Amino acid sequence: MNQSQHHPSRASLEGMSSVIIDGVELDLDRQSRCGFPEVVFAQGKSVPTVVEIFSRLTESGQEALATRVSPEQAQALKARFPEALYNCEARTVRLSRETPTRGHVPVVTAGTSDRPVAEEALETLHWMHCGCELIQDVGVAGPKRLLAQLSRFESADAIVVVAGMEGALPSVVGGWVDCPVIAVPTSVGYGASLGGLSALLGMLNSCAANVAVVNIDAGFKAGYLAGMIARRRKTDD
Amino acid sequence: MNQSQHHPSRASLEGMSSVIIDGVELDLDRQSRCGFPEVVFAQGKSVPTVVEIFSRLTESGQEALATRVSPEQAQALKARFPEALYNCEARTVRLSRETPTRGHVPVVTAGTSDRPVAEEALETLHWMHCGCELIQDVGVAGPKRLLAQLSRFESADAIVVVAGMEGALPSVVGGWVDCPVIAVPTSVGYGASLGGLSALLGMLNSCAANVAVVNIDAGFKAGYLAGMIARRRKTDD
Amino acid sequence: MNQSQHHPSRASLEGMSSVIIDGVELDLDRQSRCGFPEVVFAQGKSVPTVVEIFSRLTESGQEALATRVSPEQAQALKARFPEALYNCEARTVRLSRETPTRGHVPVVTAGTSDRPVAEEALETLHWMHCGCELIQDVGVAGPKRLLAQLSRFESADAIVVVAGMEGALPSVVGGWVDCPVIAVPTSVGYGASLGGLSALLGMLNSCAANVAVVNIDAGFKAGYLAGMIARRRKTDD
Amino acid sequence: MNQSQHHPSRASLEGMSSVIIDGVELDLDRQSRCGFPEVVFAQGKSVPTVVEIFSRLTESGQEALATRVSPEQAQALKARFPEALYNCEARTVRLSRETPTRGHVPVVTAGTSDRPVAEEALETLHWMHCGCELIQDVGVAGPKRLLAQLSRFESADAIVVVAGMEGALPSVVGGWVDCPVIAVPTSVGYGASLGGLSALLGMLNSCAANVAVVNIDAGFKAGYLAGMIARRRKTDD
Amino acid sequence: MNQSQHHPSRASLEGMSSVIIDGVELDLDRQSRCGFPEVVFAQGKSVPTVVEIFSRLTESGQEALATRVSPEQAQALKARFPEALYNCEARTVRLSRETPTRGHVPVVTAGTSDRPVAEEALETLHWMHCGCELIQDVGVAGPKRLLAQLSRFESADAIVVVAGMEGALPSVVGGWVDCPVIAVPTSVGYGASLGGLSALLGMLNSCAANVAVVNIDAGFKAGYLAGMIARRRKTDD
Amino acid sequence: MNQSQHHPSRASLEGMSSVIIDGVELDLDRQSRCGFPEVVFAQGKSVPTVVEIFSRLTESGQEALATRVSPEQAQALKARFPEALYNCEARTVRLSRETPTRGHVPVVTAGTSDRPVAEEALETLHWMHCGCELIQDVGVAGPKRLLAQLSRFESADAIVVVAGMEGALPSVVGGWVDCPVIAVPTSVGYGASLGGLSALLGMLNSCAANVAVVNIDAGFKAGYLAGMIARRRKTDD
Amino acid sequence: MNQSQHHPSRASLEGMSSVIIDGVELDLDRQSRCGFPEVVFAQGKSVPTVVEIFSRLTESGQEALATRVSPEQAQALKARFPEALYNCEARTVRLSRETPTRGHVPVVTAGTSDRPVAEEALETLHWMHCGCELIQDVGVAGPKRLLAQLSRFESADAIVVVAGMEGALPSVVGGWVDCPVIAVPTSVGYGASLGGLSALLGMLNSCAANVAVVNIDAGFKAGYLAGMIARRRKTDD
Amino acid sequence: MNQSQHHPSRASLEGMSSVIIDGVELDLDRQSRCGFPEVVFAQGKSVPTVVEIFSRLTESGQEALATRVSPEQAQALKARFPEALYNCEARTVRLSRETPTRGHVPVVTAGTSDRPVAEEALETLHWMHCGCELIQDVGVAGPKRLLAQLSRFESADAIVVVAGMEGALPSVVGGWVDCPVIAVPTSVGYGASLGGLSALLGMLNSCAANVAVVNIDAGFKAGYLAGMIARRRKTDD
Repeated sequence: MNQSQHHPSRASLEGMSSVIIDGVELDLDRQSRCGFPEVVFAQGKSVPTVVEIFSRLTESGQEALATRVSPEQAQALKARFPEALYNCEARTVRLSRETPTRGHVPVVTAGTSDRPVAEEALETLHWMHCGCELIQDVGVAGPKRLLAQLSRFESADAIVVVAGMEGALPSVVGGWVDCPVIAVPTSVGYGASLGGLSALLGMLNSCAANVAVVNIDAGFKAGYLAGMIARRRKTDD
Repeated sequence: MNQSQHHPSRASLEGMSSVIIDGVELDLDRQSRCGFPEVVFAQGKSVPTVVEIFSRLTESGQEALATRVSPEQAQALKARFPEALYNCEARTVRLSRETPTRGHVPVVTAGTSDRPVAEEALETLHWMHCGCELIQDVGVAGPKRLLAQLSRFESADAIVVVAGMEGALPSVVGGWVDCPVIAVPTSVGYGASLGGLSALLGMLNSCAANVAVVNIDAGFKAGYLAGMIARRRKTDD
Repeated sequence: MNQSQHHPSRASLEGMSSVIIDGVELDLDRQSRCGFPEVVFAQGKSVPTVVEIFSRLTESGQEALATRVSPEQAQALKARFPEALYNCEARTVRLSRETPTRGHVPVVTAGTSDRPVAEEALETLHWMHCGCELIQDVGVAGPKRLLAQLSRFESADAIVVVAGMEGALPSVVGGWVDCPVIAVPTSVGYGASLGGLSALLGMLNSCAANVAVVNIDAGFKAGYLAGMIARRRKTDD
Repeated sequence: MNQSQHHPSRASLEGMSSVIIDGVELDLDRQSRCGFPEVVFAQGKSVPTVVEIFSRLTESGQEALATRVSPEQAQALKARFPEALYNCEARTVRLSRETPTRGHVPVVTAGTSDRPVAEEALETLHWMHCGCELIQDVGVAGPKRLLAQLSRFESADAIVVVAGMEGALPSVVGGWVDCPVIAVPTSVGYGASLGGLSALLGMLNSCAANVAVVNIDAGFKAGYLAGMIARRRKTDD
Repeated sequence: MNQSQHHPSRASLEGMSSVIIDGVELDLDRQSRCGFPEVVFAQGKSVPTVVEIFSRLTESGQEALATRVSPEQAQALKARFPEALYNCEARTVRLSRETPTRGHVPVVTAGTSDRPVAEEALETLHWMHCGCELIQDVGVAGPKRLLAQLSRFESADAIVVVAGMEGALPSVVGGWVDCPVIAVPTSVGYGASLGGLSALLGMLNSCAANVAVVNIDAGFKAGYLAGMIARRRKTDD
Repeated sequence: MNQSQHHPSRASLEGMSSVIIDGVELDLDRQSRCGFPEVVFAQGKSVPTVVEIFSRLTESGQEALATRVSPEQAQALKARFPEALYNCEARTVRLSRETPTRGHVPVVTAGTSDRPVAEEALETLHWMHCGCELIQDVGVAGPKRLLAQLSRFESADAIVVVAGMEGALPSVVGGWVDCPVIAVPTSVGYGASLGGLSALLGMLNSCAANVAVVNIDAGFKAGYLAGMIARRRKTDD
Repeated sequence: MNQSQHHPSRASLEGMSSVIIDGVELDLDRQSRCGFPEVVFAQGKSVPTVVEIFSRLTESGQEALATRVSPEQAQALKARFPEALYNCEARTVRLSRETPTRGHVPVVTAGTSDRPVAEEALETLHWMHCGCELIQDVGVAGPKRLLAQLSRFESADAIVVVAGMEGALPSVVGGWVDCPVIAVPTSVGYGASLGGLSALLGMLNSCAANVAVVNIDAGFKAGYLAGMIARRRKTDD
Repeated sequence: MNQSQHHPSRASLEGMSSVIIDGVELDLDRQSRCGFPEVVFAQGKSVPTVVEIFSRLTESGQEALATRVSPEQAQALKARFPEALYNCEARTVRLSRETPTRGHVPVVTAGTSDRPVAEEALETLHWMHCGCELIQDVGVAGPKRLLAQLSRFESADAIVVVAGMEGALPSVVGGWVDCPVIAVPTSVGYGASLGGLSALLGMLNSCAANVAVVNIDAGFKAGYLAGMIARRRKTDD
């Protein structure tokens, strides 16, 4: 195999810029390198730090998304950026322009307790300007529930499936569709659910070939991956 | 609460009898106490011991079943009891009379690799004189497979569902039927299947209320429980 | 094997009906398909949602059971349905008619700390109109305790055994009886009890053939399975 | 939310067809429903069964891929289908036409021991007619190795990253690129690698947002997902 | 509290002697310090090393015991010490004088597969000149089995209980007796027995207060502890 | 082997008596059967229940010990039994006569945080009228600490060793003494201590032959076992 | 090999001295034996005890460091020793002289949430009079972040790397440098991070040869080891 | 903090060179960047590949070390490089010049079964031209064993401690010395040793501050780290 030893081109080291805010190094080049700006994982950051990061991002013309936002952080962000959207169920604050969406990603939950994780995925998809919709409470033991929704999956570029307990829903959805399924295990359950580990293991062992898995309760990651896939949609779809 | 302090009646201690064969204490009262004779877990027992236990059981007029039988043990049993049935896939030897069956238990597998465990369940059901049938390869990601079989579950007294990997099939079956589902996780799978633990955890977390679980690869136990349930069938069913 | 490829009959897809209440899809067909109405897992649902589900169930002539009910939810249900029964130890609210019972299921605990889980099983059995009784504190290290109760197991259709710590009681009970034992591990214990996992593993490895297992603290599931088994009781028992 | 209750359209239940080969139910509709034919997981299947499945697939005009193929199975397939390609490192047999490829998926390994899993991913991509290339031995502790390959990632639709031990490579790759990374943990390592679990956990906890994970050693799944994503490539890329 | 800071007396550092045999440092003082000579864990030691250790022990007038002995090691020891006793089931070689025994320790097994571990305990007790007997196959699901043996426990100084699977027997025995129970989990079982971990966890969570636990399959340790306890027997017992 | 099938003698079933207090079955025969009265595990019991059990025990002339006592339970017990001793560090209440002690059991801790568990063991030993003393803070990394205490172990009948973190102290103590060591892992530690599991595993794998293990934080069990051993002390010691 | 059997010289047993403070045995010889005084793990110790230990250490002319200090403990120490430094993020109190430093140890974090653990390492290094600096937020998915810092590693004697989540940073740092890397996993993360276990496992499986690992969140240990290594620095560096 | 954003200096990207041998990218710059050449992990590599890597290393004037070498690989290396040293216990082949050593590292084992891992550490230290010696069988339960060796630790720059089972030896050694201890858990043991995990956990929880840990059986890593530390030795030691 011909393994040429070039140096990086698009990701050249010289042109990179960053700013440091109270120990947080904000990666302003990320949009050009990875397609989207850096997202703020707000948990454990001070209120002023979160506000400052939003300021820097908007000053550099980038859209902003914060996840795992506390009510205090949300209040401060809303005070400074009144146009920001706070979704308290998703625990996100989003500052993005209204633009036409591209692609389509259904976000499906097995039960109503999985909704906060699904909302985080939906907010991420909105921030990526990707079309999306929520389909709730499609548990595998309620057999007609999924069948009734199948037509909604036809135009999907990717499907996010959010489930706790045994985590079986991604396998069942995966068998009906021709697009990638991003499975998110949730910590919903008790006893042998082991805080979501059982759902995680179930999803990793899925007998459906088109199921990929992210961390427990990682709604943001699932939405981000699905949005990235949807962006590649063929123009003639 | 009125907790009367009687002494055991049906299970009175005096009348019990047992024989000891090379350290194995054979429980000849088990049929009257528990409804069925003791079953021989052949693994780790010597060939003569297994043959001797079968002799004692038949001499006392009881039917015999051995599980986890090695080819050597099977050969010796067949030599001594030519009418015994050896199922090499199930690894069982069975010595039971032809009688009319009572009840009906479908044994369902998610994939073809789960068949040996299913066969062990089926042999157990035959030994209990319970009607049964095998329904194979009903993976949850092949959506029409289960739907095509639903009519066969209508008269079931209990259903044994055998599945490895994510172990999702019992939940899906459980949602369609009005009888208990005995779920058997199998060690089929690789990597994060953890030798069947992932399937086991999935089944324990089933969102279907009518799913009970036995040990990994425990086809005998699942068949035994299902047979015990089927025996209680109402006469007008 | 003759594997005919019919389409579902009793569970035909066309005739199904459901209603959606704040993201919760209520499965009104469940009673005809599975024998009993859907049970409300109240944890994580809003008070109005829980009340609304009860209303819909009663409007459609079905009996109602809610588990993992908070005091607030219970209060609201009692206000709207004064005839409902709230069992605060079981954390259940039940709305069911007085009818003759069928079958008999003893619910046995190893220790007094296992009682809330046993109560959840008992409430479920009441809701299913199944005869039941509580037998408490039958720890395996108190040898006479179980012997004194054996006569009460004679007419049992199934026995629910609730135990934490080493989870040995189902094995010991299983050896005395001729009916299925539904074992419920509880999170009672400390240190190496691992929140109930040790009891769960012990029960899965039971040397008694008639022991099936449900999730940790899953009193509802155990009661439901036992009730389903008892329903099949032969009329001449 | 408007949740209309249609019945399935594209995936209508009536039109489905399947054949049963020695307990294996072959899903001939899968190509139309999911975009690709069913893939044969050969492990645990008899040689004649594997050959028969290939025959049925080719007779219905579909391309065929078998994974986890034993040398005996491979020999029999090659005898019957001389044009089939056997990759003994990947343990695959593939029967597919030469057609122009669409999309581009680099498959990257952390070390040379990860190659068999990477080969399985590559064979899957070839079978899906997706462009692909192998980039080997890009361990994170050899810092210049990745930098030298960055230009090869620019046109990628998705990247498959295969790594054992600490499983850190997907995070590092993920930070340089604007497409999804499908991470495959391998069982390469010793001691605390726990048969690939440590790599799996590392990948699930990746600090890069664009990393999704499949089962340990699941080269097929990773290739399949990447191929599905690449298929959606915009025509103007 | 008065914590005086003396230096060791009985275990004074100066008087200690040891010999080194091919990297194995033989502790000849152990008998005076700990009451018994060092025991040879033969696994992983060369045949000559094992023989040499036995020679040194006998030369210094000490009795010898080797555990986990391979057939080759046993053969060489028997050739050099014809009076040594090889127990192939226990995998031990023992070289000890015939003397009157002191104390009494029953060794109880739950099933016949637990016998090798029980034999290792018994050989250890013989080497310690402690009275002992084997009581086999007292599974907790065979209820009369234990009751029939209770009289044999009356004079016990300690009881060794050997059990795999759910490991419930020590709890049941513990409730009947007034002496310590040393519980040995075994690796007997399958699936969720996790190589003996489930039995180990069960025993650690025993509801009987007089149960202490040793490592999985550690027959030697259990015998050693029981023998040490029995040695303390009051002369008037 | 001659396995006679007598019925229990000392533990005859007929003579047993018990009382039931709010679902708690108090085993008043335990002292004659097992040598000591039943101990009250107070956690999860109501205040009146705990007081009532103490009353019954004292009325029948037995001494009483309660463990895991809450301050409320302790206060009520002290009000009703002013002579009872409340040890708030041990979380015990004890009601026992002053009598001469028999035997000697040192209780050793690795660090000061292990003291509450040690206190529970000491209270149990006091209740059993066994001589005992506390030796604190003998961590294995402070090498002289243990050496300075060795003389205090000379007359020990058994030693209780309480340690968290790596749980190495029992092995080190075990190598110096000729009596059983009862090891108690504690939940002291952080991170990879896994709530005491690491200490537990270390103790189970002890290279010292005379180390037996009880559950994490099980000071009562360790004291009880040590006291039982000490009771057997030879009169000429 | 010549294994001479001398008695300890530098660590002679006779000369050792210690004091006991409320059960805490303070090891005043540790500085001469191990190079540094004993460090106070304040968690679980009373306020007076912590103050008393500081007094004894300073009276004997030793410097003092306390870790895991509560605000109350810190306040009392500051009141008694106004010159002590309280770092509330590190949860340490330090009492050490200003002296020239020797050696150089960078402390690197993957994310800002890892800072408290890094601060504990830095305080330990200050107390050891070792030069050190903090380099923050060098996540592996932000590729330029590490490259920008490489020059700062050139003069390092050892590097402490603090990371949660997948714990990949030590491997990446290790590949660039010629000194030992002490890796500290942190409990930062969620879901499958398992409280830091995933980071711990990743670091143990590092493909870089120069990575050693300490317990989760063990900033003190990492700083201590790095300081010990730096002390050995060659004078001509 | 002043975080300047330079580009790498010593580790500049331009000057790096590497060669690719059958998919293995050999890092010839590693010696200048990290102080030592790349070491060959031979497991899973073909015989010609291993020989070729040795040739390239020697052609570029570097010394060579291969670990986890099979007998076939060793034979081929010896044929091509007769001066190479094959240590079959360590499973290493080493090709290094005789030069004066610098520094001193004792390698200590708890038991004789730990020797292969110790030998791998020793070979690594020889290859690094670091002085070293083997001290065997210093189990913590043989108390005088360690005390007799203490004088040999006085001049140590670092100590490698190799132990299986409970892994307690590093803590005990750590308390006597003033240098870093590199702890290597081994897979020696049975049952609850969990293949070395128990020893690993014990070492991570060590109460000695100067203990760092590497992967199970990772003799090479421990030797490498110790050698790296010893290299920094002050000239006046």
